[in-house]
Amino acid sequence: MSLNQNRHKGESIGASGAAQPDFGRQQRKGVPEVISAERKTAEQSLEIAGRFLERNGRAILSRVPAELENRLQTAFAEQARLEWFPVPRAAVLRRKGFDLPHMGGRVGVLTAGTSDIPWAEEAALLCREMGCEVHTVYDVGVAGIHRLWEPLQHLLEEVQVDVLIVAAGMDGALPSVVSGLVDVPVIGLPTSVGYGFGGHGEAALLSMLQTCAPGMAVVNIDNGIGAGAIAGMIANRMAQGRREHNSERSSVTTHS
Amino acid sequence: MSLNQNRHKGESIGASGAAQPDFGRQQRKGVPEVISAERKTAEQSLEIAGRFLERNGRAILSRVPAELENRLQTAFAEQARLEWFPVPRAAVLRRKGFDLPHMGGRVGVLTAGTSDIPWAEEAALLCREMGCEVHTVYDVGVAGIHRLWEPLQHLLEEVQVDVLIVAAGMDGALPSVVSGLVDVPVIGLPTSVGYGFGGHGEAALLSMLQTCAPGMAVVNIDNGIGAGAIAGMIANRMAQGRREHNSERSSVTTHS
Amino acid sequence: MSLNQNRHKGESIGASGAAQPDFGRQQRKGVPEVISAERKTAEQSLEIAGRFLERNGRAILSRVPAELENRLQTAFAEQARLEWFPVPRAAVLRRKGFDLPHMGGRVGVLTAGTSDIPWAEEAALLCREMGCEVHTVYDVGVAGIHRLWEPLQHLLEEVQVDVLIVAAGMDGALPSVVSGLVDVPVIGLPTSVGYGFGGHGEAALLSMLQTCAPGMAVVNIDNGIGAGAIAGMIANRMAQGRREHNSERSSVTTHS
Amino acid sequence: MSLNQNRHKGESIGASGAAQPDFGRQQRKGVPEVISAERKTAEQSLEIAGRFLERNGRAILSRVPAELENRLQTAFAEQARLEWFPVPRAAVLRRKGFDLPHMGGRVGVLTAGTSDIPWAEEAALLCREMGCEVHTVYDVGVAGIHRLWEPLQHLLEEVQVDVLIVAAGMDGALPSVVSGLVDVPVIGLPTSVGYGFGGHGEAALLSMLQTCAPGMAVVNIDNGIGAGAIAGMIANRMAQGRREHNSERSSVTTHS
Amino acid sequence: MSLNQNRHKGESIGASGAAQPDFGRQQRKGVPEVISAERKTAEQSLEIAGRFLERNGRAILSRVPAELENRLQTAFAEQARLEWFPVPRAAVLRRKGFDLPHMGGRVGVLTAGTSDIPWAEEAALLCREMGCEVHTVYDVGVAGIHRLWEPLQHLLEEVQVDVLIVAAGMDGALPSVVSGLVDVPVIGLPTSVGYGFGGHGEAALLSMLQTCAPGMAVVNIDNGIGAGAIAGMIANRMAQGRREHNSERSSVTTHS
Amino acid sequence: MSLNQNRHKGESIGASGAAQPDFGRQQRKGVPEVISAERKTAEQSLEIAGRFLERNGRAILSRVPAELENRLQTAFAEQARLEWFPVPRAAVLRRKGFDLPHMGGRVGVLTAGTSDIPWAEEAALLCREMGCEVHTVYDVGVAGIHRLWEPLQHLLEEVQVDVLIVAAGMDGALPSVVSGLVDVPVIGLPTSVGYGFGGHGEAALLSMLQTCAPGMAVVNIDNGIGAGAIAGMIANRMAQGRREHNSERSSVTTHS
Amino acid sequence: MSLNQNRHKGESIGASGAAQPDFGRQQRKGVPEVISAERKTAEQSLEIAGRFLERNGRAILSRVPAELENRLQTAFAEQARLEWFPVPRAAVLRRKGFDLPHMGGRVGVLTAGTSDIPWAEEAALLCREMGCEVHTVYDVGVAGIHRLWEPLQHLLEEVQVDVLIVAAGMDGALPSVVSGLVDVPVIGLPTSVGYGFGGHGEAALLSMLQTCAPGMAVVNIDNGIGAGAIAGMIANRMAQGRREHNSERSSVTTHS
Amino acid sequence: MSLNQNRHKGESIGASGAAQPDFGRQQRKGVPEVISAERKTAEQSLEIAGRFLERNGRAILSRVPAELENRLQTAFAEQARLEWFPVPRAAVLRRKGFDLPHMGGRVGVLTAGTSDIPWAEEAALLCREMGCEVHTVYDVGVAGIHRLWEPLQHLLEEVQVDVLIVAAGMDGALPSVVSGLVDVPVIGLPTSVGYGFGGHGEAALLSMLQTCAPGMAVVNIDNGIGAGAIAGMIANRMAQGRREHNSERSSVTTHS
Repeated sequence: MSLNQNRHKGESIGASGAAQPDFGRQQRKGVPEVISAERKTAEQSLEIAGRFLERNGRAILSRVPAELENRLQTAFAEQARLEWFPVPRAAVLRRKGFDLPHMGGRVGVLTAGTSDIPWAEEAALLCREMGCEVHTVYDVGVAGIHRLWEPLQHLLEEVQVDVLIVAAGMDGALPSVVSGLVDVPVIGLPTSVGYGFGGHGEAALLSMLQTCAPGMAVVNIDNGIGAGAIAGMIANRMAQGRREHNSERSSVTTHS
Repeated sequence: MSLNQNRHKGESIGASGAAQPDFGRQQRKGVPEVISAERKTAEQSLEIAGRFLERNGRAILSRVPAELENRLQTAFAEQARLEWFPVPRAAVLRRKGFDLPHMGGRVGVLTAGTSDIPWAEEAALLCREMGCEVHTVYDVGVAGIHRLWEPLQHLLEEVQVDVLIVAAGMDGALPSVVSGLVDVPVIGLPTSVGYGFGGHGEAALLSMLQTCAPGMAVVNIDNGIGAGAIAGMIANRMAQGRREHNSERSSVTTHS
Repeated sequence: MSLNQNRHKGESIGASGAAQPDFGRQQRKGVPEVISAERKTAEQSLEIAGRFLERNGRAILSRVPAELENRLQTAFAEQARLEWFPVPRAAVLRRKGFDLPHMGGRVGVLTAGTSDIPWAEEAALLCREMGCEVHTVYDVGVAGIHRLWEPLQHLLEEVQVDVLIVAAGMDGALPSVVSGLVDVPVIGLPTSVGYGFGGHGEAALLSMLQTCAPGMAVVNIDNGIGAGAIAGMIANRMAQGRREHNSERSSVTTHS
Repeated sequence: MSLNQNRHKGESIGASGAAQPDFGRQQRKGVPEVISAERKTAEQSLEIAGRFLERNGRAILSRVPAELENRLQTAFAEQARLEWFPVPRAAVLRRKGFDLPHMGGRVGVLTAGTSDIPWAEEAALLCREMGCEVHTVYDVGVAGIHRLWEPLQHLLEEVQVDVLIVAAGMDGALPSVVSGLVDVPVIGLPTSVGYGFGGHGEAALLSMLQTCAPGMAVVNIDNGIGAGAIAGMIANRMAQGRREHNSERSSVTTHS
Repeated sequence: MSLNQNRHKGESIGASGAAQPDFGRQQRKGVPEVISAERKTAEQSLEIAGRFLERNGRAILSRVPAELENRLQTAFAEQARLEWFPVPRAAVLRRKGFDLPHMGGRVGVLTAGTSDIPWAEEAALLCREMGCEVHTVYDVGVAGIHRLWEPLQHLLEEVQVDVLIVAAGMDGALPSVVSGLVDVPVIGLPTSVGYGFGGHGEAALLSMLQTCAPGMAVVNIDNGIGAGAIAGMIANRMAQGRREHNSERSSVTTHS
Repeated sequence: MSLNQNRHKGESIGASGAAQPDFGRQQRKGVPEVISAERKTAEQSLEIAGRFLERNGRAILSRVPAELENRLQTAFAEQARLEWFPVPRAAVLRRKGFDLPHMGGRVGVLTAGTSDIPWAEEAALLCREMGCEVHTVYDVGVAGIHRLWEPLQHLLEEVQVDVLIVAAGMDGALPSVVSGLVDVPVIGLPTSVGYGFGGHGEAALLSMLQTCAPGMAVVNIDNGIGAGAIAGMIANRMAQGRREHNSERSSVTTHS
Repeated sequence: MSLNQNRHKGESIGASGAAQPDFGRQQRKGVPEVISAERKTAEQSLEIAGRFLERNGRAILSRVPAELENRLQTAFAEQARLEWFPVPRAAVLRRKGFDLPHMGGRVGVLTAGTSDIPWAEEAALLCREMGCEVHTVYDVGVAGIHRLWEPLQHLLEEVQVDVLIVAAGMDGALPSVVSGLVDVPVIGLPTSVGYGFGGHGEAALLSMLQTCAPGMAVVNIDNGIGAGAIAGMIANRMAQGRREHNSERSSVTTHS
Repeated sequence: MSLNQNRHKGESIGASGAAQPDFGRQQRKGVPEVISAERKTAEQSLEIAGRFLERNGRAILSRVPAELENRLQTAFAEQARLEWFPVPRAAVLRRKGFDLPHMGGRVGVLTAGTSDIPWAEEAALLCREMGCEVHTVYDVGVAGIHRLWEPLQHLLEEVQVDVLIVAAGMDGALPSVVSGLVDVPVIGLPTSVGYGFGGHGEAALLSMLQTCAPGMAVVNIDNGIGAGAIAGMIANRMAQGRREHNSERSSVTTHS
């Protein structure tokens, strides 16, 4: 018996149960589509991943359940290479010959605590897949803020990051502190780390929305992919100017 | 020992633990009662289904748990035919000889994403059981809105739908976009698809309630049955005029 | 000094401070655009009203502040006729010769209490301006539900309304009670009448969203215009079938 | 190693991990204490139950988990009689010779739907253990309100209840409808039956708090015990007057 | 120009803009209807008051604005006597010859602070108009709980109240403390006294809903009328038994 | 006509409309009672102030409206000296000869911004009236956190404060930053400074409740009096030990 | 009598009641500090503005109340030139000789409706004061989305904006639609335009946080200054690369 | 494949997946860092515990899952002694020779019910590890408030506690009652004990924030560690004065 059983005429478009993935997003936005595997069956995720592999040469999967993790090990063994990221539970499949272009954007990623790392890594992973350099500094929250100065100075003066992603749960104070100190745009990434009242990330989100330090915008709680997407876009567009500028001055290619 | 043990007099009406189903709703409202199996034991659901089968010739069950799904396969094998809908986890039992009348209402159902499909299918199923034609178009949300134009035009100009159900989770933007374009009533169906703040469908519900495009009303989050009920009522009443009108002009029956 | 002062190039579209009204909505949706005067200066409202008068022959204004009310009395005295509705604080301007077509939709409007009347009248007014017949029954809420039966029966059997708008604040119970009794679609209109917890209409809205009587959808709190728009669309489409049907049977025009 | 290990002096009162049950509440308030077993280990519940049995001759347990249900069957087999109530998952243990006095209060309990029955039964059980007569009428909600009139009239005119408990989830409309019709106090009991926005009983609670029918007060969501306690107190105090009055007129005892 | 202007047929019931007051409520429920003047024009309130005076011999108005207060002084000077209550801003008009029957219910009213008094007085006023004796004790909240014992003992042992209304804002703790001590039903009346988070009465309402002392039910924030209505009903019904009982023993009438 | 008009017996305790102030609180708790004039009439506030003056020799008034401010200038001119604090709109009246004892507690008060100062001053004022030394540092929030180090070090090392009150609105980040750096207890004081979502102090409150730096507790939004009360109690108790200790070592009085 | 009256020693830093403005922010962050005049007295605002004028040559004031607006006309007439922006109620004072550098960032600003313009203009103003080119397109929301295509294409292809600010109230759908179409970063700016449930901008904020179109981050409701700050930072950094690149190719200065 | 895979340069600080524990907190704040094991893998918790053991001689673990509990029994058997606290599910490891200094602070801990004990014990444990004496009194809530007086008097007059922690769920009334009676600072600890609306501790938290008894501050719901940290800091600082004072008078060491 069919899903689209239709006793009295009628028709269905796109109702096969599978997604209609947006294969053109990479080209249109510079941001590759990420397959969120959280609410999908393993079959669905594998099918969509296969279609991305075929068309774009790469498939990125986030929030991979245990069952899918196991099946990914072998499913595309012949045509693709699998990279597995245990902390954010993400995977990247690359067809042989797929070449990740170096776009030159420089993204810094900070976290307040260790529990924020999974979402920070989700953001970092997407930025890397957009061709950015990513520099991460973890566990430098306001409960011991003296740990912040040195690595922050390093990111700004030596690495010269184009944009900072700052992830924090609980009080969500770190992004405001950082934004008050730096001269680059800050993307606040609230995480669902906390307890009691406001402890699913609401306190962190609200605190960031209320920041008294201008130069910050935020994404939703735990939305590492969203933070990575806008940060990567910003950084790569800044790099584009530099790259053209540099290529004028010298013929040395910056491609890695 | 009885539930209604009564040490000091007293009595009980309707306290047998079983529902007092509204067998007359179909006649009074044109909307068949749907047995929501989610919070019932398999025994309760089977008993109520049996009573509907006997009286009305049909029983519709939604949100069917796995255990009930298994028992439904055989429970009414002799007297009824079972249709199973895996996506919305719904079932329809029909006694032999049950005839679903064609009422002629034309309902269009759209979803923003693939995760919204289960509730869209719940709505579509109820509309079909009310004798409507249902036309579905899935995964045409605002993240890639260019996918929307063609199928929407088809629904409006060729199918000439009487009413549209538009299901969306997350930002809940699609129903407002659609309602700004069409000249038929729109029923907004927010779904619990999302993450983080407002991610159980609250953001989608609020956005639909705040629509700046007149001509839309909404049902509660994930209430596919509710969306189907009002959409089916609207469509069938519109069809009633057409039917009478057409039957005047010719004697050809429109029954499929 | 101009609003769009632009020190370093740049330009502005639609930034004159005046709205870009949607003159085509009437044609596209069958719902005339209503000028919400609540947040506009009297000048802005008068200017937009003038443009509607010129293009469409009619301008509808809702939530008219006292100052605007006074200026409306004379502003268009030469070219248009003014109708003033004190309860919903709304106004309709009609150019001489403007002819409101009779569309034939039949809308019933009920309220639970007397405090709900302003929003009910807002809905009724829009329906009338869409060419519907409107039948209103007020103050029949559940605190004395015996007052409901007779007028409801009248609406259903004699008037034969196509759709019901049911407005209620406080407990918001009336729309559910009505929807459980009738066989026409119900549009629930929660109002901001109440006190204490949930007393700005939240209790009424939630109760309507949670209705256990299928066949109802809701609009936002105090959104009389929104309720009128969808109810008028539904009723007129139903009337369209009837009108064609009747015109087949006889040549008598239904125009009043 | 002890829980109250105390390295630097200090002491503990009541820190043995067991509750200090209020054995005097029955006498002080006329309401027996109910052991809520939901968050206790089976051992804790059994120990407290034993102490109540010993002191008061009776122990009442609510929200009994499956494990405790099994152990209750045998734990007090020698000294007490067990009554098990499957719908509210409650149990009453009575020592041999325990005599439940007939207090004479008459309590009516109504529910809107079948899913509200467990909490209604919790309330009914407590009222019975307070010596009240309890009369229950279930599944008479506003989606088919015609089912309400007859049993309600019976409760008021023949049974002559002293107080009504009205349980409802979802839209929570039934208590307001009933309170608008009757001349006895109504205790509104919102239940966590529902879906989507406000679907854990919030919509029902708010609607009851906003009732436009005077003569109703409410308890918290799912608080069947609380509803039973106040209803039983009200009814028994009313009965007290009647009993004294009657005993003046005749010497016939009212004890069943 | 009429409010119910009706261009295309249609009619209006009860749309004169005036309320359809429930004159029979006093008889049906024993609770007189109270005219809430807060959202009404002075004209509307005076008109409704006049109709109550004529039919029932008494009109009760609550939340009276300053303008109405002034006009009440003279509006009914010939036919009725006016009582003005400045603290709850309420008024009672009595036609000459109107006789308030003594029903005998005994209601105690407590407040936590002085700011809670207006709503406590609103409740007390309604109880008195229902023929109850009312005993008030104010400003005995938990910030200095030693002030509570003596007057509470007086109410319970000497006055022997049938029911207690306990009003509290801020922490809302007093009703729970009282309910843990007394053997009469308690009606919790949360007030909008407070500041900061939860300071419009939400903290008080939630604390009362979560009471750990059984025997209490609550009304909405600031709903003094609602608290008085149910408390008066409870007390008068208890008194009814006593009155009959006493009238058996002696022929002395209790009527004041 | 009296407020406590009582047609059918009954009595009133404490119902004169005036507060029953807690004159003993100063002795019992070491915290003087503060008359919150916000919701009182000028007459009420003056009467209560007079009674405090008479009994305790001092009256403290907070949140003084303009009218009361004017009347305070002359009302007690003969018997008391008035100090007026324009920023927190507070006043202290002292009878001649009133001697404020020096308790020795040392309280530091910090604010994130200038808008937080009124509530910080409210707290500081109460601490001073409890006999504490108060040291304030304002406008050192995280938007420019470099301004924090020097004054904080001064407070800790030179002043050697016993406790810190840290007031912040908007993101509420400063208290967490401070608490992560210091070795004295921190009282977080969220203020209603902010905008948009969570902008009435909710974001600040939640962020403080979620602090990841241990050693902080919070009071409600804008509750400067509450913050001062607990901070003053803590500081004075710490000073008590020091004072006894020092007085052992030398006979020099610490009184300034 | 002084604010910082100090009876028992103690001191105050920054407690003069005036802000300690962050004069170095412009240099540190490239974002000039904006004086929010909303909660300040006219005196305070004028004093701070004077200090900014003196130090930085420019003072920017937002949310200027009527009284301050009047006084600004003359207060600095001798030393500075005043620009007044009526729609966002903002003012800019420039000392003679102050030269606003052209930074070259290109910012596009869109609004869904006309009511969103004040906050959009606030953002635009700040971007201009940061030396950006600003291009605005207003009233292109989803209720008539056909008005969006042409101006959006113009912004992207001809103007080649570096970043888009998209302001929307009510349903908040426009930013998601835009973000799904463009390849530049989008800053979502929710506004407090709306009505009923979620109508103070909450619906718009939540919908933007839940966007299904990657490449967008949001600021708080009505935070035009915040949106302008981050957008201006992004655009100017992108321009920096272009400017260096161009200056390599030619010696023509881009300074306007 | 490494977590910090880095295709295009970039680096990571602190990204090893392990926490950067704050070993200096004990010295800086007097509060030992507690390892919250709830969201960590057993491996992570064991590794961090080992590092604390090595550096500080002690490791404290809270919210220990079952698996970690088992592994702790043997993991450090050779170098440390394990104390296990079953009620709060906490563990303390001490290296041989570790000596817990007696700081002399005296902390009282009260709970309203038995369900609050786990979090009260968490607070007590941390205070003991800070060298405080802890005195606990459990199950003395307002439902039977007569149980409170005696133990409270004992704590205040005989034990002479420096500070009280009062834990309560449900109505959260006990801390306000206690704070109204005592002259020591009170730390309110709301717990997630409750049901229905506000039943995850929100009602308790709000009631405590709204306390009308000055001298109390609160921590977040279930934050026993936070309550213990600030209470221990307060008590030990108070003891410091006493200790120095006493040591002046005599040479007897107070070390246990």
